[in-house]
Amino acid sequence: MIFIFSEMKKTDGLVKNAIGKLVPTEVNGKPVVPYMGVGKYRPQGRKYAQLISTCADYPSDGNKLIPSLKEALIKSGLKDGMTISTHHHFRNGDLIAVQIFDIAAEMGIKDLVWYPSASFECHSPLIKYLEDGTIHHIEGSMNGSLGRFTSKGLMKGVGVLRSHGGRYQAVQDGDVHIDIAVIASPTADPFGNANGVDGPAACGLIGFALADSEYADKVIVVTDNLIPFPCIPWQIQGNNVDYVVQVEQVGIPEKIVSGTTEVTKSPDRLLLAEMTAKFCDQAGIIRDGFSFQAGAGGTALSIGIYFADILRDRGMKARFARGGSNKYLVNMLDEGLLEFILDGQTFDLDGVKSMRENPNHVNTSPFTSYNYHGKGNFAQLVDITILGATEVDLNFNANVVTHSDGVLLHGIGGWQNCLFSKCTILPIPLFRDRIPVIRDEVTTICGPGELIDVIVTERGIAINPLRKDLIEKLKNSDLPIKTIRELKDEAEKICGVPAKIEFEDEIVAIVKWVDGTVIDCVRKIKQK
Amino acid sequence: MIFIFSEMKKTDGLVKNAIGKLVPTEVNGKPVVPYMGVGKYRPQGRKYAQLISTCADYPSDGNKLIPSLKEALIKSGLKDGMTISTHHHFRNGDLIAVQIFDIAAEMGIKDLVWYPSASFECHSPLIKYLEDGTIHHIEGSMNGSLGRFTSKGLMKGVGVLRSHGGRYQAVQDGDVHIDIAVIASPTADPFGNANGVDGPAACGLIGFALADSEYADKVIVVTDNLIPFPCIPWQIQGNNVDYVVQVEQVGIPEKIVSGTTEVTKSPDRLLLAEMTAKFCDQAGIIRDGFSFQAGAGGTALSIGIYFADILRDRGMKARFARGGSNKYLVNMLDEGLLEFILDGQTFDLDGVKSMRENPNHVNTSPFTSYNYHGKGNFAQLVDITILGATEVDLNFNANVVTHSDGVLLHGIGGWQNCLFSKCTILPIPLFRDRIPVIRDEVTTICGPGELIDVIVTERGIAINPLRKDLIEKLKNSDLPIKTIRELKDEAEKICGVPAKIEFEDEIVAIVKWVDGTVIDCVRKIKQK
Repeated sequence: MIFIFSEMKKTDGLVKNAIGKLVPTEVNGKPVVPYMGVGKYRPQGRKYAQLISTCADYPSDGNKLIPSLKEALIKSGLKDGMTISTHHHFRNGDLIAVQIFDIAAEMGIKDLVWYPSASFECHSPLIKYLEDGTIHHIEGSMNGSLGRFTSKGLMKGVGVLRSHGGRYQAVQDGDVHIDIAVIASPTADPFGNANGVDGPAACGLIGFALADSEYADKVIVVTDNLIPFPCIPWQIQGNNVDYVVQVEQVGIPEKIVSGTTEVTKSPDRLLLAEMTAKFCDQAGIIRDGFSFQAGAGGTALSIGIYFADILRDRGMKARFARGGSNKYLVNMLDEGLLEFILDGQTFDLDGVKSMRENPNHVNTSPFTSYNYHGKGNFAQLVDITILGATEVDLNFNANVVTHSDGVLLHGIGGWQNCLFSKCTILPIPLFRDRIPVIRDEVTTICGPGELIDVIVTERGIAINPLRKDLIEKLKNSDLPIKTIRELKDEAEKICGVPAKIEFEDEIVAIVKWVDGTVIDCVRKIKQK
Repeated sequence: MIFIFSEMKKTDGLVKNAIGKLVPTEVNGKPVVPYMGVGKYRPQGRKYAQLISTCADYPSDGNKLIPSLKEALIKSGLKDGMTISTHHHFRNGDLIAVQIFDIAAEMGIKDLVWYPSASFECHSPLIKYLEDGTIHHIEGSMNGSLGRFTSKGLMKGVGVLRSHGGRYQAVQDGDVHIDIAVIASPTADPFGNANGVDGPAACGLIGFALADSEYADKVIVVTDNLIPFPCIPWQIQGNNVDYVVQVEQVGIPEKIVSGTTEVTKSPDRLLLAEMTAKFCDQAGIIRDGFSFQAGAGGTALSIGIYFADILRDRGMKARFARGGSNKYLVNMLDEGLLEFILDGQTFDLDGVKSMRENPNHVNTSPFTSYNYHGKGNFAQLVDITILGATEVDLNFNANVVTHSDGVLLHGIGGWQNCLFSKCTILPIPLFRDRIPVIRDEVTTICGPGELIDVIVTERGIAINPLRKDLIEKLKNSDLPIKTIRELKDEAEKICGVPAKIEFEDEIVAIVKWVDGTVIDCVRKIKQK
């Protein structure tokens, strides 16, 4: 399964996909399928299947301990061109990913593909390995410094951006073959059962590593809290694990909590939150037994608090909340305003504690929640999903990966997957740093407008014309319902029409849709 | 994947396998591999892989409800020659399996294969469908009436007996392709998440249906307790489910509890239990943090009570117990003599309640516990396993499927899988109904003697000569340690040498080893 990459970067042979973007049909030497529209691509063939293992090849006492990560990587057959996966539950406190590539570089290994579920600033030391050829390219989010590096065209291969669900889909379908998965685990037993709720580096869950554990050729569990069998709960199953490595520290707990986890104090954002909550209420979505997903940003947290207030006032409760958990969601669960948290990623230590102690705070995975190539997923069952965006166009198409300067700075996360909820709302400021957010065209299309129902800005709310039901429900509202064009004109009246960003032709990354097709690509920025 | 069975029953073309038994190389028109020895067979190729699904083919609101089982079977494409699977967690209280074949017969479907995880007397109505050709043969246990029917050579095809782990292995490896899995579930939501701990027919867990949910082409969840999404815990994941059917009653709770669930009062069996416990103690196996698996029979229950007494007296506790749970095991957990129950099958309602309420009473599956074609399994981690047998030979080979009259009356259950524990003990009476249990040759070899360490009888204990460590440890014991030949001679002195059972040449069933190879076969009994 080792692949020798072509050195060519695609700048020609592009085709126009169903959303009108020019995309390549081959990336890093492998064919890719252009986006065909929501639900239009029919997957062919069977899921990826691992070679059959036998207990005869594993220690009869079940003890899979190996003295060091290096030895485990060597035993796993680490060599040029392999794909190595890691998960991001430690967020900016991950201590393992960089170590893997330190070892690989020391061994003189070249052309690896890093397949993280997301990257953080703590991974910027990997830039030297992208420069010296240890790593050929990254398939996963290229955030911050890694994003800037990619945008400058400095990565040897083409980056591949996928949603959390798309990452599971790619592994399940065999689009990405993981040679070695390294699963940093806050607690594990010598058999390889592992979880994220216990131990000094507890991060809640490790569900982003599920696909890796199920489909990788070799699976290494790394832990700093080795306990006797059985490790309960086993979020990762030892029956899928080849080797277990004990290390001093697997993650920095203080840095697991990252991103905004406090309710916003900005008056503009509080206004956005209030308008969003009012919109949901007037649309009749907030009712006994409803469900929602809100991110960890300050605005989203504030919306959650509005939802809690409404539920408390009316003696109602929500059936479930999906998404990253935090102390606000945990408070709702504890107060009985919420029956279940279906949690894909804990954002603070209150979330970790709640998952450990409350059986109604349930760990999930991209398989349950987001995989589009399954028999349904949880995201589509959510009544209201609150998401962000860097840009939105007049057709409601939205961008989450590139900034107004064209630089790749964010991963997709679960954003694309969440668009399948029953009502997707983007509460966004009308402009950021005097640059309007609503554009004729977004720099990078990450999600098709037909799945984005409502844009809430501080100066008005635009409902997607496809949602005639919502337009009807809100027709007598006191909320400032406007068209998206009105919002755009208003922003441009204040800030002027934003200048077009200039790019080179060279494609530095592609953006995959939830079904594995290519919805857009990111080009090299013009150096000034 | 539809297969037209050859009408030929194998009586020729047999080969001698590694344990000296003549076995066929083709069964029901498919090639099979003769047993090659413990750990000797190397599986080739990849696991079975399902066709890739897409959410586009499933209801966008996640509601997979279908009005009736018949409609669900029709939507699943039920047709001649298909393999239909069910699980046996309801034991003798199952209400669904017979319904499936009632529907199939009504539709005129022929030559189905029934692939249950076990059968019970409640399934004897299926005999009429074996007679009229609706069912071609059974791959699973053929107990009681179904066993007698099979032994008479009345089943159209050849039965295939597998252990619980072998059943998972067969599905995972693609040896058995399940067309339609029907998963009777005490609780489920419309998305298909399901569990066994809640609802009027709660049976604890439904882990025997895990392989079915993961690998079958179509998966139907049938429940009498439909709750709003999410069904927590989801022992079966809705993401693997095609259709959900609500019925009035899915199982009879009173009949879920079946088999012996009371401690024995028989003085002989109490003696066996006491001797076994003493043996374990003198062998140094009962120590702080040890683990054990004991079945649900009266003797096994009594042994558990002896273990509890020893632990309590010495202020020690066991780390985990594997296997079916019952009130005695639950009491040990509650009393703190046991840290975890890793439960594959609840044998009484105390077990069900404990699994529902105690997070240290964990549901498992044949994947975690028994699958030999994984990267290890739990069975091998158990310090002491107590099992039964109908016959044992001088090489410690044992039989669990046929009786002294040669009739097929039992399934293998987890018996073969449990042989991989660190010490396997069979406490068995020296004779039953005046027929010696220790024989020159057993009627059917289900497990190779090299994995069976100790035979405990009321008149003496035989240690397998391969276990020099145990022989050494017990050399000064006050227990009646004898050779297995001494035990056999003693029995024959009392009961005489048992007459040889006469069989026809015709093979009515084969017995698979944990790796899918054929260890022995069962022949048609001579009608008198």
